[in-house]
Amino acid sequence: MEPYELTLSDAATEIATGALSPVELTDSVLARIDTVEGDLTAFVTVTEEVARAQAAVAAEEIARGAYRGPLHGIPIALKDLYDTAGILTTSSSQVRAQHVPTADSAVAERFAQAGAVLVGKTHTHEFAYGATTPTTRNPWDVDRIPGGSSGGSGAAVAAGECMVGMGSDTGGSIRIPAALCGVVGLKPTYGRVSRRGVASLSWSLDHVGPLTRTVRDAALTLNAIAGYDRADPGSVDVPVVDFTRRIGMDLTGVRVGVPTDYFTDHLQEEVRDSVAAAVAALGALGATLVQVEIPMASQIAAVEWGLMLPEATAYHQEALRATPELFTEETRALLEVGEFVLATDYLKAQRVRTLVQAAWRDLFSRIDVLAAPTLTCTATLAGQTEVVWPDGLREAPTTTYVRFSQPANVTGLPSITVPTGLDAAGLPMGVQIMGRPFEEDVVCGVAAAYEEVSGFAGRLAPLHRELTAV
Amino acid sequence: MEPYELTLSDAATEIATGALSPVELTDSVLARIDTVEGDLTAFVTVTEEVARAQAAVAAEEIARGAYRGPLHGIPIALKDLYDTAGILTTSSSQVRAQHVPTADSAVAERFAQAGAVLVGKTHTHEFAYGATTPTTRNPWDVDRIPGGSSGGSGAAVAAGECMVGMGSDTGGSIRIPAALCGVVGLKPTYGRVSRRGVASLSWSLDHVGPLTRTVRDAALTLNAIAGYDRADPGSVDVPVVDFTRRIGMDLTGVRVGVPTDYFTDHLQEEVRDSVAAAVAALGALGATLVQVEIPMASQIAAVEWGLMLPEATAYHQEALRATPELFTEETRALLEVGEFVLATDYLKAQRVRTLVQAAWRDLFSRIDVLAAPTLTCTATLAGQTEVVWPDGLREAPTTTYVRFSQPANVTGLPSITVPTGLDAAGLPMGVQIMGRPFEEDVVCGVAAAYEEVSGFAGRLAPLHRELTAV
Repeated sequence: MEPYELTLSDAATEIATGALSPVELTDSVLARIDTVEGDLTAFVTVTEEVARAQAAVAAEEIARGAYRGPLHGIPIALKDLYDTAGILTTSSSQVRAQHVPTADSAVAERFAQAGAVLVGKTHTHEFAYGATTPTTRNPWDVDRIPGGSSGGSGAAVAAGECMVGMGSDTGGSIRIPAALCGVVGLKPTYGRVSRRGVASLSWSLDHVGPLTRTVRDAALTLNAIAGYDRADPGSVDVPVVDFTRRIGMDLTGVRVGVPTDYFTDHLQEEVRDSVAAAVAALGALGATLVQVEIPMASQIAAVEWGLMLPEATAYHQEALRATPELFTEETRALLEVGEFVLATDYLKAQRVRTLVQAAWRDLFSRIDVLAAPTLTCTATLAGQTEVVWPDGLREAPTTTYVRFSQPANVTGLPSITVPTGLDAAGLPMGVQIMGRPFEEDVVCGVAAAYEEVSGFAGRLAPLHRELTAV
Repeated sequence: MEPYELTLSDAATEIATGALSPVELTDSVLARIDTVEGDLTAFVTVTEEVARAQAAVAAEEIARGAYRGPLHGIPIALKDLYDTAGILTTSSSQVRAQHVPTADSAVAERFAQAGAVLVGKTHTHEFAYGATTPTTRNPWDVDRIPGGSSGGSGAAVAAGECMVGMGSDTGGSIRIPAALCGVVGLKPTYGRVSRRGVASLSWSLDHVGPLTRTVRDAALTLNAIAGYDRADPGSVDVPVVDFTRRIGMDLTGVRVGVPTDYFTDHLQEEVRDSVAAAVAALGALGATLVQVEIPMASQIAAVEWGLMLPEATAYHQEALRATPELFTEETRALLEVGEFVLATDYLKAQRVRTLVQAAWRDLFSRIDVLAAPTLTCTATLAGQTEVVWPDGLREAPTTTYVRFSQPANVTGLPSITVPTGLDAAGLPMGVQIMGRPFEEDVVCGVAAAYEEVSGFAGRLAPLHRELTAV
């Protein structure tokens, strides 16, 4: 086994015991990047020099006994929305083709404090405004999309190009590429991790969080990056616990909500069956399955778009007026629509959101977590413009991919996606576990319990091509 | 001295010792209302039966030793924006001419728990959207306005018609009538007191709080009504202290900010001099006076209106479309303007507000409180449409009155106004003391120290007519 194949947890154990050097691990990961980037284009920038220097420092620190913890010497990648001092940060847009920040984002600072090794900046759907990431391919089938907007991080983690790929999630942008690329994606509670220095899409819906190979790896990463930051107006000052503390928990008596609507319509049968099997596995582990109706389901998309459209436009308005031609046509069209939204409609979206949140609070008084499919379908082919359902409904890929993920953005609740296996075509599927505000530990505990019996934990992608006919 | 002439604190002392019965006190206040309401019209509804019944219950409870605290048996009035179960609640608008709520507002519940006696519902500028309260007159000169929007509560407290008049404050609507009517008005920190069941003007700027005759009375009232309420999305879960605890504090070393701009332009000379004397008095009491520039002063009005216009329209939109003719022309015009505000402009106002708040946070790292004139001028005549300044600037009364009060709404900081005396025409003037978030105790402590040397504490209004030529 090559070092790049290790999960974060396993690599950390070997590093802590001296069995593996951060330099050796980083060399292995950089070599893997060399091997697979031609097929994937997961990275905007590979920070080879930075990585080698940080790995050498980490090795030296660890050698003299100054071990910082599980992230020390671990190769990680940041979505190219995250500011990195002195390193190009493009948001995968021509608008920022030359943008070199002078300061680190809060998360970059935290990784530096933890001794992590930055191997590069990963591609995003332009400014995170879409769920396909056209620059990048899916390592399970390189003719397919990795999902998005954190598509680069999804592909990189799945292919062994890094052990953590950071993403951001406004309507599903961590969980979508995680599910499509067969890895774990954790969107923490709104306000849990500082967004300082991360390009904003929609500040009232934006979350940042990790994509990793296992649930434990996600929890360890959250341990390193969670915490209040008054420089992020959405940051919430709540205690940070050890998010791994419920991994290994007994599920007896844990109430798992199983939706009877919303997450049940217009989804692939194999996805439906795979998630049903995952839910049954939770039941077999002792959890109490509780059938629940999703409250105010019909309002969720309206709230998401009613907030996101004008917030995205407000953020980009100067650039949109100064250099509209630098945006892709797709992004520009969305930003232009946002210019026409009335403040009263925006406020109505905010008010309905408050009602949705209250209704979900009530829902979570009857259950501990909610288990639902992460996505309606597996990865589409690159360039595919729509998904057609048996009843004739046609959806753009982004539209269908956000359908099951945006409830956790509108509510702000934590949600983690875990692979449930591969469909007949060899493409990954996933289940998401949602929980109460700031109960990421519970969400990780339940997810890890399922992961252990899923038979999929930590699997790397094979880089196939044209696995399936369409 | 008649019982109605007592301050809340003095009445509470007499009630606690059995020297005064809540029934006797309530009788006296109701008789006072009978005497002065013809001149003032402070009340929409006098709840005489409710008051007598509650006073009898309070008397019985106290007689058997079940004394609830300083509000027990005290006659209070609620602005007619506050829902009161079974009692007409009009917001001084034809739109709600028949509106009888089925549940109490949070504040009404708190007063009931404290054993207070509700004597009535006071007039507001229609739906709190203005600072003059045309229905009502000023007890210092009944040809003049009481200010607004809590004009009924200002007039009632100043005239001895109640011991607490509750107000709401979106751009100054507690402090403006308090200052114009020569009483104390306390706008707590944003989120300190629940607004559940109070008609909204602008939810991100709305605050509720008391008008009283003394600073101690305001602090005692805040003790009864402060606290987290998850039913108000703006409510903040912070500890509630005894807000009287700093009354009597030594001002030595307390840093009092004295503005060198914003609060220095376009104000009456007598107001300026009176406030300067109040600041000097704080210095004489040992405070350190620190000259400060007001940060981002030019942005304050734009933020206030950018938030308030669309938020007010969003709240009233259904009624505006269904029965536009029931609004006064003034309110309807403002609500119609709100329909045209773009979401991106609203969002810009929110973003600038965040910057203003950060800048004021820095300001308050150098000072403990800020002392400034509450208003630019004393009470205008009823029907007066503008105030003309020596340099030719003309302002509508509402525009000039909110100019010095709205910074505390945009920042959300606590602010209390205390009378500084009367001008040559016999009209009250006031100084406001602003403080750090949730430091109402400090704000009350400094204000009470000044109040004690002001020679004005607790004075009732004389109900003069045509004191002055204009």
